[in-house]
Order: sequence, then structure tokens, then C-alpha cells
Amino acid sequence: MAQGGFFVSDPYGIRRVLEPRGAMPQPAWRLDATAVCSEDEVLIDVSALNVDAASFQQIIADVGRDEHAVSERILSIIRERGKLHNPVTGSGGMLLGTVREIGVNYENRAAIAPGDRIATLVSLSLTPLHIEAIHSIHLDTGQVVCSGTAVLFSSGLLARLPSDLPEALALAVCDVCGAPAQVARICQPGQTVAIFGGGGKSGMLSAVQARRKIGEAGRLIAFETAEKSAQALRELGCADHVVLADARDPVQTLNAMMNVTDGVLADVTINCVSAPGTELASILVTRTRGLVYFFSMATSFTAAALGAEGVGKDVDMLIGNGYAEGHAELAFELVRNEPKLQAVFAAKLAQPTGGGTPQ
Amino acid sequence: MAQGGFFVSDPYGIRRVLEPRGAMPQPAWRLDATAVCSEDEVLIDVSALNVDAASFQQIIADVGRDEHAVSERILSIIRERGKLHNPVTGSGGMLLGTVREIGVNYENRAAIAPGDRIATLVSLSLTPLHIEAIHSIHLDTGQVVCSGTAVLFSSGLLARLPSDLPEALALAVCDVCGAPAQVARICQPGQTVAIFGGGGKSGMLSAVQARRKIGEAGRLIAFETAEKSAQALRELGCADHVVLADARDPVQTLNAMMNVTDGVLADVTINCVSAPGTELASILVTRTRGLVYFFSMATSFTAAALGAEGVGKDVDMLIGNGYAEGHAELAFELVRNEPKLQAVFAAKLAQPTGGGTPQ
Ligand SMILES: NC(=O)c1ccc[n+]([C@@H]2O[C@H](COP(=O)([O-])OP(=O)(O)OC[C@H]3O[C@@H](n4cnc5c(N)ncnc54)[C@H](OP(=O)(O)O)[C@@H]3O)[C@@H](O)[C@H]2O)c1
Ligand SMILES: NC(=O)c1ccc[n+]([C@@H]2O[C@H](COP(=O)([O-])OP(=O)(O)OC[C@H]3O[C@@H](n4cnc5c(N)ncnc54)[C@H](OP(=O)(O)O)[C@@H]3O)[C@@H](O)[C@H]2O)c1
Repeated sequence: MAQGGFFVSDPYGIRRVLEPRGAMPQPAWRLDATAVCSEDEVLIDVSALNVDAASFQQIIADVGRDEHAVSERILSIIRERGKLHNPVTGSGGMLLGTVREIGVNYENRAAIAPGDRIATLVSLSLTPLHIEAIHSIHLDTGQVVCSGTAVLFSSGLLARLPSDLPEALALAVCDVCGAPAQVARICQPGQTVAIFGGGGKSGMLSAVQARRKIGEAGRLIAFETAEKSAQALRELGCADHVVLADARDPVQTLNAMMNVTDGVLADVTINCVSAPGTELASILVTRTRGLVYFFSMATSFTAAALGAEGVGKDVDMLIGNGYAEGHAELAFELVRNEPKLQAVFAAKLAQPTGGGTPQ
Repeated sequence: MAQGGFFVSDPYGIRRVLEPRGAMPQPAWRLDATAVCSEDEVLIDVSALNVDAASFQQIIADVGRDEHAVSERILSIIRERGKLHNPVTGSGGMLLGTVREIGVNYENRAAIAPGDRIATLVSLSLTPLHIEAIHSIHLDTGQVVCSGTAVLFSSGLLARLPSDLPEALALAVCDVCGAPAQVARICQPGQTVAIFGGGGKSGMLSAVQARRKIGEAGRLIAFETAEKSAQALRELGCADHVVLADARDPVQTLNAMMNVTDGVLADVTINCVSAPGTELASILVTRTRGLVYFFSMATSFTAAALGAEGVGKDVDMLIGNGYAEGHAELAFELVRNEPKLQAVFAAKLAQPTGGGTPQ
């Protein structure tokens, strides 16, 4: 209830949808991006857009590798739709900015205040956006330096960027921070935990968090395909065993697991692999009534459901929700307090193929 | 360890794979279907095959709606691959038969004995199969009456068919029995439970099982699109509210939910819908830290993961594993002891569009 008036809560921003009326903002064609902060919204001064890689490549393929042409295309999408929602790829990206105004009924989960530097954790494909000018575009990373305004709904997620971490590092951590937050919930002291893609960005955060939870009595087995990533994992020092195996090969992977654990299967398996086809290996290395946590977006629902049935494996299988309460803060804390993690993570980002999030 | 010899356990039947060696039986091209029962296998006298609908339609489209031609094609696939694994659709089906022999090291989860009438619950696409003769083919249902042998591995699932239930009913129950078994685990007394597709086959079993678990203090809200299915649900009498709403429309569905519950969201949401695009509605009607159980094979992993993040909803999301220990027995017991359920379920099967499993 707002002061002196009747307040109808609209946490999903449905009132901002112009076309078609009554739809949710993401599937909608056009949003109202007017820079006025309603009672349950946040108004943001935008300084940069990180365009989703798929969207950015599509635009370049269409208009050519030319800063001016790319800029025009981005502006025209935003003008037409009131959001940066690429009509071909369906994807968006994220933005960086400063909090200008906070509505009195905004559910302030990230505890922000005007003036705070923030990144949005929801897609630009559902964020009302108005851009006054694009100042420069980094054609390699998809970062667009610009000025404008954006609106975040009550349900929309954002992260306050910590002043003690480099911004590029903080952004990359934000991108995968759902993984360690879930790992903190599902791993318990003393457990045997298997992790696939443990040398990747979400994998490293998850591995370090898993070790914290399982403690010295627990056992952590991390799988990697490339020696380079395996080396990064060894430097982290949190895994009891770093195993080179291709998770797309279930038989090889199961044998490798049994080999290092003397036949013990995992209580919890965490899948952070970027490649498809690793569902069955994840299921096989997990014990009966254990839990498989699929963070990888390459996971196929049917491959997991039918795979488990096909091998008669009674395991629980969790879909990696990108959001868990306090996920960004937990991940920042992890990187802040584990110097080795911060160093290895930063080194990974510096590799030419390292960054998934354009910075 | 076998009597007098060294026994290497092979629960997944990898030794039956001829091409390529070392692969799992499902992705493999060719299996060894020799009718000899190894120590951890079951040998089955096959009486009928229920060919997967997608596979059966593809065969008819290719060779014509002719019993002889369809029969020849099925036999040629089985001869070439040692399993009924349609190379075009990738799918199989299931079989009916009688247990002939049980290996001494077979992990007898369904407590079978020689002579028992059984149905396999794993796909024919991974089951070594040898067919001597096809006696008749039902061109409408895809049921193939035949004689031959099949092999089930230790990990392979089967159900002993109860003598007190009609075989067609028992088979249809087997097809979806993973759902009520999971529902029995995840629902707790007093909870508010939402179910989508509650009037379908898996939906009805889940609704009745949910009511058993939540008790009188709990609240069950069932969603349906068609009045006919809603009527079936009302006859079951297990739901507190039967709501007509299209789960592909998240806003309409959320409003309908809030309307009947006075704004209370579900502790557990069960999705048994056959149509795609219902992930977001399932997430929205669930409370923060509640659980969404996706049994529907039409579920998209990315739509669920990104959908939850997009609306900032911290919910757990389970992938519907087709297998849970004792699932077939539990579902048979449910149908046996709930006469209304048995009647409504049987009526659903008798409808021309009712059967998902070919009988
Ligand atoms: N659920 C969510 O909300 C959410 C949010 C963000 C990201 N994601 C997803 O999470 C996944 C990982 O993201 P990320 O940023 O951590 O990626 P990343 O840094 O590129 O790491 C991917 C890891 O997977 C490993 N890998 C690739 N193929 C493999 C195979 N066949 N067997 C074993 N390991 C293999 C890679 O190893 P090498 O280094 O040896 O190649 C690497 O360690 C992606 O699918 C991403 O889309 C999900
Ligand atoms: N996870 C597993 O292991 C596993 C195993 C077996 C089956 N399945 C899957 O489970 C699902 C259901 O199977 P089933 O045999 O129970 O199917 P079914 O008997 O055909 O029931 C489907 C139900 O979904 C309802 N529905 C369809 N569109 C809807 C919409 N837009 N909104 C709300 N409800 C809608 C239908 O309602 P109407 O009657 O009104 O059309 C019907 O009640 C399928 O996707 C199947 O593949 C999964």
C-alpha cells in the first residue's frame, strides 16, 4: 500500500507491456520504457550494455563488422521494442549502471541505495530500456558504452558491484553465481561429490564451495577434458582427485570414477559442462538416491529423464535455477576470501577463450 | 561372484554391444541378442511388442499401411541391430512376455520368478531382441503379437503384471508410474499442491497420490484446459479446486491460482502436461523455496532455468525421472485400492484419443 493511495503490486512488470497487452515482458513484442519509477520499480542510469554473444554475432553477420552500423541496429531494436531483445536470436544480455531512484514498494533484496553501481542479472530481453546515445562499441566483446535509462521490476534481479573487486571479474562471477549458491545448499559434510567441468568458471566456484561444505571428511572428484583446465583445478587445491575424462563418454567416465574411489559413487554430482551429451555420465557416477545438479544449459531434459530410466537409476535431478537468494553476495564473498580462487578465476578470464560473459 | 567362477558385474549390458565395442546399449548400432541368460540377466519369452508411436508411424509412412510390409520392416530392423531401434526416429517401445530364466546374480528388484507375466519398462532401443515370427500386427495401436526372446540387464526395469488388473490398464499405468512415486516422496501433510494436466493419465495418479500425502489439512488445486478432463477430475473427487486455465498462459494461470487460494502459492507444483510452454506458469504459482516437479517430457530445460531467473523465483526444480524404486507396485496399489481412480482411468483409456501407450 503506497502512502495515501491504493497500490496494486505488479512484480513482473506486466503493466509495462504494450504489445500484446497482458503478456509477460519477456515474450512481449514491445515494452513501455518511459523513465518514470513506479512504486515497485528501480530506475537505473545505464552506462554500458553487455550484449548476449548470440545476439551480437547475429547483428554483425547481418550488418557487417562496422561500429556505426552495429550501433544503428542496436538503437533501432531498442526504439522499436522498448528493450534490447534481438528478434532473430530471441536473446538479450545484461547492463551496467547506477541506481537513480527506488520505488517505495520495491522489494529490495540486494539492499541497494541511489548512487550504487549495479549489474542487472535478468535478461535485457525483458528490461525496459531507453538509450540516448551510444558512445562506443567493443566489437570483440559486445560491450556497448552508452547513456540511457532502464527499469527493473520488483522481481528483477540485480547485483551491487563490490568496490574491492575488479568490475570484469565481478561481472563474470555474477554470470554463474547461481551454481555455488545451490552447491552450498545441496552438499553436506562428509559427502562424496563429483563435479564435471570443474575447471570452468561455474565449475571452479562450485568446487571451492563444495569443499567448504563437505569438509575434510568429504571427497571431491573433479572431471576435466583439457589438461590446461585440469591444471587450473589442481592449482585451486580443493579437489581430492582431478580426473581427465570426456563426460560425453559414460563408460569411460564411470570407470574413471570407480577407479579413483574404489567403486564408491557420488552422493552429489554437479554438472557445469558447456558441451551437450553429458547427462548419462552424470547419472551413472551418482549413487542410488543421490542427487544430480545440472547447472549446464546444454542439459537436455529428455536425455536426463530417459537416461536415468534407461539405466534404472533412482536419482533426484535438479534443474539449475540461475537464481538463489543471496547468490551474488555469496559468490563475491567466495572470490574475496579465497585468494587462490580469485587468481585462477582471473587468469581464466584473461585467456582468449576464457570469457563466456562479454565484458 | 558366481559359483565356482569369477564374475564381473555388467549391470548396463555393455558386453552385449557388438558395434561399436565399449558403447552403452542404447546409442550402440548393434547388440548381441543370443538367447543365453548370463549371471546378471533375465531371459524373457516375448509375446508382444508395443512399438513406440513415433517409430510405428514412421514405418507405416515409409512402407505403407500394409501388415506384411510393416512386419518385414520390423523384422529387418531387429535382424540388423539385434534390437527394435528405429534408425530414423531413434525410438523403440516396450515388450510383454513371460520370464524364462533368471541369472543367479540378477538384482531382482521387481521380485520376479520364472513363469511370471511381465512388461519391460526400459526402451526396446536398448533391449537385445530376437524374433522368430510375427503373428499379427494391430495397425491402429502398434501392437505386434509375436514369438521370440529378449534379454534384460540387471539395471533394466520391468514390472510384474498383476493378475487382478486388466492388462491394458496395467500397461498404461506402467507408462506413467514414475509420477505418483515421486509425488509420494515430495508432498507432505498439510501442503498446498498445484497440479497441471491433472486430468491426464499421469496427472490423475499424481493427484490421488498427492491427496493421500497432504491429507485433509492440505489443499490440492488442479488445472485443466478441456472441460471433459476437468469433469473426469471432479469425478475423482481428490482436488479442492478444479480450475480451467491454459498453462501456456502464465498470467492467466497465476491469476486463477491466486483467485481460488486467496493469494497463497503452492508448496509443491506437479507438471503433467503434454503440451510445451508451461514452465513459467508452473514456476509462478509456486512459493519462494517451493518445489516444481516437471514430469512432462515437453519441459524445456532452458525455459525452466531461465524462466525462474527471469522472474527472480528461488524455487527448486526437479526433472521427472521415469524410475523410482517400487514405482510400478505403488501405482498398481493406488489403482487397485481407489475404485474411482480405476474407473476414471479406464474410461480415459477407452477414449479414442486417450491412450499414450499403444496396447
Ligand atoms: N543454469 C544457469 O542458470 C546457468 C547460468 C550461467 C551459465 N550456465 C551454463 O553453465 C555451463 C558452464 O558455464 P561456464 O561459464 O562455467 O563455462 P566454462 O567456463 O566455459 O566452463 C565449461 C567447462 O566444461 C568443460 N567441458 C567441456 N566439454 C567437456 C566434456 N566433454 N567433458 C567434461 N568437461 C567438459 C570445460 O573444460 P575444458 O576447459 O577442458 O574445455 C570447462 O571446464 C554452460 O552451459 C552455461 O550455459 C547456466
Ligand atoms: N518423466 C517421465 O519419465 C515420463 C514418463 C511418461 C510420460 N511422461 C510425460 O508426461 C506427460 C503427460 O503424460 P500423460 O500420459 O499423463 O498424458 P495425457 O494423459 O495425455 O495427459 C496430458 C494432460 O495435459 C493436459 N494439457 C494439455 N495441454 C494443456 C495446457 N496448455 N494447459 C493445461 N493442461 C494441458 C491435458 O488436458 P486436456 O485433456 O484438457 O487436453 C491432459 O490432462 C507427457 O509429456 C509424457 O511424455 C514423462
